[in-house]
Amino acid sequence: MPELRRDPVTGRWVIIATERAKRPSALVDTTPTEKIDKVNPFKAGNEHMTPPEILAYRPPGSKANSEGWWVRVFPNMYPALESEGEVSRAGLGMFDMMNGIGAHEVVVESPDEGVQLGDMDVEQVQEAIWAYRDRAVALRKDPRFQYVMIFKNYGKQAGASIWHPHSQIIALPIVPKNVQEKIEGARRYFDYKERCVFCDMIHQERNDAARVVMENDEFIAFCPYASRFPFEVFILPKQHACFFSDITKNIVSHLAEILQGTLRRLKLAVNDPAYNMIIHTTPKTLGDVPYFHWHIEILPALSRVAGFEWGSGFFINPIPPEDAAKFLRHAEMPGNVDLIPGEEGGEDLDSLKRISRASRAKVKKL
Amino acid sequence: MPELRRDPVTGRWVIIATERAKRPSALVDTTPTEKIDKVNPFKAGNEHMTPPEILAYRPPGSKANSEGWWVRVFPNMYPALESEGEVSRAGLGMFDMMNGIGAHEVVVESPDEGVQLGDMDVEQVQEAIWAYRDRAVALRKDPRFQYVMIFKNYGKQAGASIWHPHSQIIALPIVPKNVQEKIEGARRYFDYKERCVFCDMIHQERNDAARVVMENDEFIAFCPYASRFPFEVFILPKQHACFFSDITKNIVSHLAEILQGTLRRLKLAVNDPAYNMIIHTTPKTLGDVPYFHWHIEILPALSRVAGFEWGSGFFINPIPPEDAAKFLRHAEMPGNVDLIPGEEGGEDLDSLKRISRASRAKVKKL
Repeated sequence: MPELRRDPVTGRWVIIATERAKRPSALVDTTPTEKIDKVNPFKAGNEHMTPPEILAYRPPGSKANSEGWWVRVFPNMYPALESEGEVSRAGLGMFDMMNGIGAHEVVVESPDEGVQLGDMDVEQVQEAIWAYRDRAVALRKDPRFQYVMIFKNYGKQAGASIWHPHSQIIALPIVPKNVQEKIEGARRYFDYKERCVFCDMIHQERNDAARVVMENDEFIAFCPYASRFPFEVFILPKQHACFFSDITKNIVSHLAEILQGTLRRLKLAVNDPAYNMIIHTTPKTLGDVPYFHWHIEILPALSRVAGFEWGSGFFINPIPPEDAAKFLRHAEMPGNVDLIPGEEGGEDLDSLKRISRASRAKVKKL
Repeated sequence: MPELRRDPVTGRWVIIATERAKRPSALVDTTPTEKIDKVNPFKAGNEHMTPPEILAYRPPGSKANSEGWWVRVFPNMYPALESEGEVSRAGLGMFDMMNGIGAHEVVVESPDEGVQLGDMDVEQVQEAIWAYRDRAVALRKDPRFQYVMIFKNYGKQAGASIWHPHSQIIALPIVPKNVQEKIEGARRYFDYKERCVFCDMIHQERNDAARVVMENDEFIAFCPYASRFPFEVFILPKQHACFFSDITKNIVSHLAEILQGTLRRLKLAVNDPAYNMIIHTTPKTLGDVPYFHWHIEILPALSRVAGFEWGSGFFINPIPPEDAAKFLRHAEMPGNVDLIPGEEGGEDLDSLKRISRASRAKVKKL
C-alpha cells in the first residue's frame, strides 16, 4: 500500500509509492523517444495485456476487453495509489500521513498507435473528451475522493513511458496543493474585484490579441502572460463555467476543435515537442462558484527545471509568450517557420527559428 | 532587459529572459553528460573568457583575473537578471510586472575541472562555503535585493551546461514564492507549538534514526520524511540558526565535512547522479526569528516531473526515504551495494540495487 506523507513545513503531500519502482521500465535511459512501442499493451488486439476495462466506447454487442473499441479506459497497471480500502489518517510523532487510497486510470484515446491527439479527426478527439468526462463524473461520486485530475504526458521528456496515445486520471483523497492555491488566488481576486480572474484574463487577452493562439465560438487558447515554459498554452471556455464535468455536446465539439488545433500547431511550429496537459477544475466540495473557471494547461517540456526553480518557485522562460503565440498562430502557414510578411518579428525570432529547426530541441536553462 | 511577470491567479513570478535564448548551448540534446567541457571558461588559465571577477581567493600579490586562485566568483555571462538599474513595478491592464533587476553570479569552486564538491579535500569545500557566504553578505547589503539564493546544478539532467565545479547565486528584488511558503509554514507551526519546526524535525530524526544519513557535532543530514525525490537529503545545523550568512569558522568546517560526505555517499551509492543543491535561509527583511532555520536541500534528478506533479503539486517518490537513507549510510562499505549483514533490508532493496548498478539510472514516473 502506498503512503501519503505531508511535509511539516510547507504542507505539501508526497506519495511514497514503492510499487512503482518495480515497473520494468522504471530505470530508463535518456535516449530520445522512439515513436513506436516495442511492446504495446494499449493497442487494439492487446486487450489481454491490460487490467479489465472500466469503460470502452465500442459497437453495440461487441464484447468487453476485445477489439472493436475506439476509446478504452482501464486501471493503471502500476498505480500510484490503491483503489481498495478506506482513507485513514495517522500521526507519526510530528509527521502526518494517510494511506495511499485513490484511483489511477489510463484513457487510451485511439486503437491506432500512430495517431496522437493533435493528428486525429476532431470526431475522435471528441470521443476522448467524452471518456475523460464520463470517468470524471463517475469518480466524483466516490465519497473517498476529493479531487479528480485528468492529465496527459506526451513524449519521454514529459514522463511518458508508452507512445500509444493515452491520458491518465488520478482521483485523490485530498484537494492537491496546486489546485488549492489556484482556488485561493482566484477567490482573493474575486473578493477584491467581484469578477472572475479567468473571465478578466479572457477579456484582456482578446483585447491585447498578442498572446492569442486560436479562438472559436466557445473557447480561447492563449500563451499566458506569465508563462513558466516556452510555448505554454492555456485553453479556457469563454463562458464562465466551474466544472469540466458539466460540459455539454456543443461545448465538447468546440473543445475538440481547439484542443486538436492547438496541439497540431505546437507539433508543426516547435517540432513535435514533449508536453504535459492538465485539466483544472473546481473541487467537488465547492459548489457552483463564481470565482473559479475550469481550464486546460499545456506545458511543453522544452526547458529544464533546475536548482533556481526548485528553490525559489520562480521560473525562467527564455521565450516571451507574445513571440510564442505569434509563432503558433502562423504554424500552419506554408513553410511554417517564417512569420507572415508585414507582421513584425519578435526580438527572438532567430532563436524561435532555431527551436523550430533543431531536432529534439531543448531550451536549456541556467 | 528581462521582465518579471506575476501570475494573476497564483501570484507566482516568472522571469521572461529573452537574453538567455541566445546562449550557444541554448538548444541542447538529451545525450548524457560528458564529464569534460570542450570549451571550459571556468578553468585556471581561461580567466579572460569570463566577465571580470567579483571575488577570488588567491595568494597575496597575485593579479585579479589571472591564474593562482582557488575559488573565483564572477557575473554569469548569460544572466537571468540585470544588475544595473533600479527596481520598478508597473501594471499592464490586469497584469503586474517588474523590470528584471537582480544579480546572477557564478562561484567556481576549484581551478581543477575534474574535482567535484564531493571529491574535494574538506579544506577546499570550506573555501567554497566561505565564498558563498562572502557573496551572500555583500548582496544582502544591496537595498534593491530582498533575497539571495545560492544553488548548484550538477550534471546535465539537473540543468548544468558546464561540467567544471561551480555553483550560482541569484539575488532577487522579491522574496520568492517557495521561500515565502516555507517561512509561513514554519511560522504557523511555531504559533501553534512555540517550537521551531526544523528543531523538532532534527529531534525526531535523531530519535527515529531510520532516515539519518550522517551526523557530526554541528550538523545532521537526513532523507526527509516527505521526500519528493529518491535520495533527497536535507542538511541542517543542529543549533537553531536563521541566517546562513552568520556561519562561523567552526560551523564552516563541520558543514564542509558533512556536505562533502553526503555528496560523496550520493555519488558512490547512486552512481553519481545529477542533482540540484539549494541553500535556504531567512529573508533579510525578517530579524532573528525563532521559527526559521537555515538548511540545505539536495535534490537528485533521478525522477521525471510529469503532468501529475505539474498539475497537483504532489510528488510521487518510488524510493522510501528510509531505504534511501540506509543505502546512503552504507555507501562507503566495501562493495557499496549490499547492506551490512544483520541490518534488515527494505522491501525495495532490489530496486535500490538496480539503481546503484544501472549506468545513468533514471527512475521513471507515471
